[in-house]
Amino acid sequence: MARVAVIIGDMFEDSEYTEPAAALRLAGHEVILVGLQAGQTVHGKKERTPVTIDLAVQDARTADFDALLIPGGYSPDKLRAEPQAVEFVRQFMQDNKPVFSICHGPQLLISARSLKGRRLTGWKSIRQDIIYAGANFIDEEMVEDGNLITSRSPKDLPAFIRACLAKLAS
Amino acid sequence: MARVAVIIGDMFEDSEYTEPAAALRLAGHEVILVGLQAGQTVHGKKERTPVTIDLAVQDARTADFDALLIPGGYSPDKLRAEPQAVEFVRQFMQDNKPVFSICHGPQLLISARSLKGRRLTGWKSIRQDIIYAGANFIDEEMVEDGNLITSRSPKDLPAFIRACLAKLAS
Repeated sequence: MARVAVIIGDMFEDSEYTEPAAALRLAGHEVILVGLQAGQTVHGKKERTPVTIDLAVQDARTADFDALLIPGGYSPDKLRAEPQAVEFVRQFMQDNKPVFSICHGPQLLISARSLKGRRLTGWKSIRQDIIYAGANFIDEEMVEDGNLITSRSPKDLPAFIRACLAKLAS
Repeated sequence: MARVAVIIGDMFEDSEYTEPAAALRLAGHEVILVGLQAGQTVHGKKERTPVTIDLAVQDARTADFDALLIPGGYSPDKLRAEPQAVEFVRQFMQDNKPVFSICHGPQLLISARSLKGRRLTGWKSIRQDIIYAGANFIDEEMVEDGNLITSRSPKDLPAFIRACLAKLAS
């Protein structure tokens, strides 16, 4: 089964972490929480869901993981201010490993300059950022482009989770 | 004296509204709160400062104002999801009226596609977004480029406010 890193920080969109993580674990995959500081507890922005970070991003190596999940909310905005978090994400894209990004998740991919020529979706507020990054913004519930699976919001979670699980099974 | 529109929504960075607004009023300028819905009360993200919206953005006309202030926090992310808010901001830039933007404020200017060839600063998390928008990102406490005055964070407020007041006095 796969080892999936979840890159997460304060003010993540609760369901965009809890629902994919539950589905991944149910399917037998391992979920490792990567953040700015190991042992720190971060919280979701709506329901204050507590999440304790397993591994600091500066100690995390892409080679130890099979895939990356980027939940949305304001967590990506906080993480992208840290160069080591951006570099961690960039490596997954460079290595062509599966990357699952929802809502504001593409903000990290923009900072990693990993979107040129790619097809993806994301939350409507970052549409122009995605276009300026050289990508095609597609307004659909789930967009799959090679290693990259993206969705727009919590409403898209069923399609997003289905695609993530299928990618790991392929 | 000047009529200054403040475009603001939920989760604004408290001091990036309260301090410039107080300084503008003290200098005799009129401050009008423009948001998604007139009469609605929005709140700051740190201190929950309440702000009641004077005028809905769909009823606001750039011609009625002399300048625009865009406080940061997550307010710009919420506002840029609304095309009428983006268009309101775009008009100020097109008309070359003073625009004062701090922290995440440039997110609205990016969605308005108003930054090509401009020099500005902003919060570090949106640096790559600003560069992709065709602008030069300058890491200084205050950057003045024609009608546009920008700063990075609450720490820069003294320099930001000084420059805003000087622009309105010029």
